[in-house]
Amino acid sequence: MTVTRPLLAITLGDPAGIGPLVGARAALDPALRRRSRPLLVGDAWILHRLLHRRGIAVKPLPSIDDYLDRPGVANVLHVPHPEIRTLRRGAAQRVGGESAALSIRAAVALALAGRVAAVVTGPASKESFRLAGLPHPGHTEMLAALCGIDHVEMVMAAGRRRTVLITRHLPLKDVSAALTTNKIIEAILRVDAWGRTHLGLRKRPRWILCGLNPHAGDGGLLGREEIRTVAPAAAALRKKGLPLLGPWPADVAWARHAAGESDFVASLYHDQGMIPLKTLDGRRLVNVTVGLPFVRTSPGHGTAFDLAAGPRAEAMADAEPTLEAARVALDLALRNPR
Amino acid sequence: MTVTRPLLAITLGDPAGIGPLVGARAALDPALRRRSRPLLVGDAWILHRLLHRRGIAVKPLPSIDDYLDRPGVANVLHVPHPEIRTLRRGAAQRVGGESAALSIRAAVALALAGRVAAVVTGPASKESFRLAGLPHPGHTEMLAALCGIDHVEMVMAAGRRRTVLITRHLPLKDVSAALTTNKIIEAILRVDAWGRTHLGLRKRPRWILCGLNPHAGDGGLLGREEIRTVAPAAAALRKKGLPLLGPWPADVAWARHAAGESDFVASLYHDQGMIPLKTLDGRRLVNVTVGLPFVRTSPGHGTAFDLAAGPRAEAMADAEPTLEAARVALDLALRNPR
Repeated sequence: MTVTRPLLAITLGDPAGIGPLVGARAALDPALRRRSRPLLVGDAWILHRLLHRRGIAVKPLPSIDDYLDRPGVANVLHVPHPEIRTLRRGAAQRVGGESAALSIRAAVALALAGRVAAVVTGPASKESFRLAGLPHPGHTEMLAALCGIDHVEMVMAAGRRRTVLITRHLPLKDVSAALTTNKIIEAILRVDAWGRTHLGLRKRPRWILCGLNPHAGDGGLLGREEIRTVAPAAAALRKKGLPLLGPWPADVAWARHAAGESDFVASLYHDQGMIPLKTLDGRRLVNVTVGLPFVRTSPGHGTAFDLAAGPRAEAMADAEPTLEAARVALDLALRNPR
Repeated sequence: MTVTRPLLAITLGDPAGIGPLVGARAALDPALRRRSRPLLVGDAWILHRLLHRRGIAVKPLPSIDDYLDRPGVANVLHVPHPEIRTLRRGAAQRVGGESAALSIRAAVALALAGRVAAVVTGPASKESFRLAGLPHPGHTEMLAALCGIDHVEMVMAAGRRRTVLITRHLPLKDVSAALTTNKIIEAILRVDAWGRTHLGLRKRPRWILCGLNPHAGDGGLLGREEIRTVAPAAAALRKKGLPLLGPWPADVAWARHAAGESDFVASLYHDQGMIPLKTLDGRRLVNVTVGLPFVRTSPGHGTAFDLAAGPRAEAMADAEPTLEAARVALDLALRNPR
């Protein structure tokens, strides 16, 4: 029996960052190739420039039907940007944002057409997006818009530690006003439904919900959002049958989650979830978008412009987070084939 | 040569919480007694009630001169509360707050008089403090007031991982308005000076300063506090010669600190520092007050009223955080005898 290994799209992200380097390294990884056929998506010229000294063949594909399944060959669906040769490594710029956006669009088109099993996106720069005139603050929002989806959820995972970020890329001072009881309920319900079908857990997902303030507000002394907004969401979710604890002080919630006491933490703001996950296990940190019609993951780091611009970029750039994002994407796609 | 082991005050904290239990357990620990003479400070009646079933002798001392240095004896400087018998275990209440405050006052008096080498405080409840009519939001502020000190800093440590909380017990939405460039500079300078003299580091302390917003504001797209307030503080501190990196995204700052790349993280708000420390190493988490005329530490957990009220309080309450607070206090006191 011949089983065709699934095609896995890996976008290069912002070509001025480390995305092309770590993407190519992941695509050449023998273990990943045993499970899948990695397909880089982006401008082949930048890849060629990065890789030719290492004796790696970059094969630009006009179409994915030309995929060359041979070790040591990096297959790239060529998404050219006419000004790519003007790119400065290691800085936010219009061309970088445009190139990243073009490769995302190409990968989404493949995924929506069912031509690839999943999409792993390389790191993009919010600043480059802005310079390119893109209306989206980041990847997650752009993907939702390209798929015509109103609500997607951002789940961050490192092995069995997982969180959903109820609010995402907001200034810290705006978090309180952006939180509503409904937003908390709906985000958790969406991720809970996904968790039940996609994670292969034996029981339904166990949740811990964080409070917003120090000591979860300490009975109202240190803020009233827990009383007004968060606890009512917890009560409503428990009433729907979710095994959910909280709102707890965020430091307690995370310590208990790290000890294995839940399958998910619900984090009310970006850093409430990102600080512990990156600190515990940054190399395995994977961003999963829940709610798209296909599987999308990305490594949990940014463009690392400082590193990309440096003389030792090649030695320093770590492909492990991209490989982990690819493994998670494949696990999710194989567990729920379309 | 006979060296008298130093007296170490350990307050019972809120008597309705787990403080008396973990304090007594720590005071009876043989290893701690080899280094010091632990002196519990609080209402002896509550201790007696908790310990008599275990066959432990509680020795109430009218004065510390009566200290009985014998294994298995818990020495308690008796600080009676007239209504202690009305105390309900496991709940915030006026009597608990008053009793906690009385024992803190007694311990501070001993420390200011040089009668004890250091003070370890058991966990108090902010809610009980409020019900007792105390004007202080917590321990740290009360200690500063009792010593007539304007500014103290709250350092949280777990082994070599350490942070100063630049703002402390504030609702999250008020953090941005409370931050000023000067506050950041002064807090870091105070802790840096303390670190140079008290920690026994070989070089001067290395710092990483967190930003406030996701991705440290991402060049201003996700908040401008980094540009307006935090980066100027970093520049001023570097100009004064501090080896200080940042402001960095808080998740990156903590991941790098956890990997050993600095001696301190400067956290701009409570949970920015507490989440990673408690998640990484909650049992060793110690709160150190910097700027008092004596050494004061406390375990990094709260009263655990839920646990204290339960049937298995005795089996579950963990004395390790109190023991670690005692070890840290002794190390600091011995390194800097008065």
